[in-house]
Amino acid sequence: MRSENVKVAIWGFGAMGSGMAKMLMNKKGVEIVGVCDRNPERVGKSIYEILGVERGNRPDVIVNPEIDEVISEKSCDVCLTATDSFTAKAFPRLKHVLEKKINVISTAEEMSYPQAQNPELAAELDKIAKENGVTILGTGINPGLIMDLLVVVLTGCMTDVTEIEAKRVNSLSPFGHAVMEEQGVGITVDEFNNGVADGSLAGHVGFEESINMIGDAIGWPVEKIETQMKPIVTTVDRKSPHGFAAAGNVAGVNMTGQGFVDGQVKINMIHPQQIEPEMEGTFTGDYITLKGSPEVNMIIKPEVEGGLGTIAMCVNMIPQVINSEAGLKTMLDLPVPRAIMGDMRQFIK
Amino acid sequence: MRSENVKVAIWGFGAMGSGMAKMLMNKKGVEIVGVCDRNPERVGKSIYEILGVERGNRPDVIVNPEIDEVISEKSCDVCLTATDSFTAKAFPRLKHVLEKKINVISTAEEMSYPQAQNPELAAELDKIAKENGVTILGTGINPGLIMDLLVVVLTGCMTDVTEIEAKRVNSLSPFGHAVMEEQGVGITVDEFNNGVADGSLAGHVGFEESINMIGDAIGWPVEKIETQMKPIVTTVDRKSPHGFAAAGNVAGVNMTGQGFVDGQVKINMIHPQQIEPEMEGTFTGDYITLKGSPEVNMIIKPEVEGGLGTIAMCVNMIPQVINSEAGLKTMLDLPVPRAIMGDMRQFIK
Repeated sequence: MRSENVKVAIWGFGAMGSGMAKMLMNKKGVEIVGVCDRNPERVGKSIYEILGVERGNRPDVIVNPEIDEVISEKSCDVCLTATDSFTAKAFPRLKHVLEKKINVISTAEEMSYPQAQNPELAAELDKIAKENGVTILGTGINPGLIMDLLVVVLTGCMTDVTEIEAKRVNSLSPFGHAVMEEQGVGITVDEFNNGVADGSLAGHVGFEESINMIGDAIGWPVEKIETQMKPIVTTVDRKSPHGFAAAGNVAGVNMTGQGFVDGQVKINMIHPQQIEPEMEGTFTGDYITLKGSPEVNMIIKPEVEGGLGTIAMCVNMIPQVINSEAGLKTMLDLPVPRAIMGDMRQFIK
Repeated sequence: MRSENVKVAIWGFGAMGSGMAKMLMNKKGVEIVGVCDRNPERVGKSIYEILGVERGNRPDVIVNPEIDEVISEKSCDVCLTATDSFTAKAFPRLKHVLEKKINVISTAEEMSYPQAQNPELAAELDKIAKENGVTILGTGINPGLIMDLLVVVLTGCMTDVTEIEAKRVNSLSPFGHAVMEEQGVGITVDEFNNGVADGSLAGHVGFEESINMIGDAIGWPVEKIETQMKPIVTTVDRKSPHGFAAAGNVAGVNMTGQGFVDGQVKINMIHPQQIEPEMEGTFTGDYITLKGSPEVNMIIKPEVEGGLGTIAMCVNMIPQVINSEAGLKTMLDLPVPRAIMGDMRQFIK
């Protein structure tokens, strides 16, 4: 086992980045060596103070708005970047870290399978990573596990697959204001429809990535993907810690998507997300239904909590990313994710 | 994509080996180049005749009892060996194939994690494989996926794990006479207890492997494993296609196992298997319960069918084994299993 701790930098200290920091503080054999974030409320503060965690005898880490004051060439093993959802927007930051010869794990949803929507940028990231001898991976709970990798794993016990359905019914109640805005919680149906039309409402980002990941994994050429985004209109007032939807307004968004193979829909994605779903009799869960031989009907109830799940996936993949050969990797390329309950150094080859 | 088909030999043409052959016959870019089996009912016969499959323009494959007439140095990409349950018994055969510089996938339950009970043989297999530039993997539905790899994958979305329970409630009704005998279906309770005492009743083989695989994967040092094997006594006559248990006799076996970590049971395995479970109100399924943060409660209902599941896992892992660096690998080391719905050659790097 190596003697030095695994060294981690974090870029973006919002809910995801700070959650990863908190998780890392409870692990052995790993230390946070720097945090970059531009939010004026966080800049200049100790991450231990921000998180309310005892620093003990660990060196202090002060949030710095300048990435070049946080990382330098080979200054750490991996940088967790939690700044963006889209590959194109994240690209300059990812490139910057890779060129410092530091491995990258990105929370950007599109980065879970960037070859789906940005094949040129994906090829470019692969090239840059290889030139610098490091690895880049995008992951999270979804995309990253529930509606793609877990589907793929379960097809592994099938001799034949004819149709795939992945359904994630989740609650937005644990999330903060940013998520409420992104998903349109509390707005009117007109505002929702305008937001969809002008692209300002993103909804869930990830169907293109999940569908292409599944298709490529099992050898189904996906020739077309269609997606739909509809408001979930509540008939009662719904209130969550950070959201409110009055009766008649939008409590969340119902995302659906279809992957076409051989002219038919063979991959179906259903993903309604809303605050307080149980107020109108919707119960949360993750469902994977695989038709073929043998059939597989999987249920996880309630759904795996998205925030913690994303935090865990990114941190838990650190050893696989460090151990990997250089280049752009996806969850399909690396050994399976797993919790890290022992000293992280024992997972490093 | 390589132009030559992936070439597969099969050693052992019972239910598993012949099932894999049938599955391979439905796949593109792969061919069966030889089958070794000593059963006099099969020796000298065409595998197409045995399986009742149209040969078409494929070259015929005749079952041969001598392995050296089936494989020679580098004569194929991989040999699927379906001859044994135990590492020590399988070892000479596995060594023989590896020394022909041919990759191996073994159905032997203990081979799914041979370091658990035969660390010296595991090290020896790793050495032989590396010397010959090939890879050896043991896999199957269980051990191999349901009570170990799938557990590990699901811990990947957890920041902390405190306790693991894997439960597989399955029906033995689809299985043949060999399984009925191995599991004690139809015998009296006295006969069952004698069979457990003298070791002639194996029951499920795999708890040591699954528990150690999980422990090593997440970094829990497993210090002790206990297992129990109890008869499932039926109160009604139960009849399956190949089995019969009169009221008062044994309809199957209830296997339980516990992995101790830090002096406590942290990994619990529960695996009752019997014919016609629903006759006394038992419904089959696979259940994974992970305590910690976030909690994960997974159900697959009914259970993934064991025979087809094992066949699929072995065939579906062919590309990962061919693509792997040399040595003994486990399901923890390789990219995730996945169905092969396209030309198998496109999965080979």
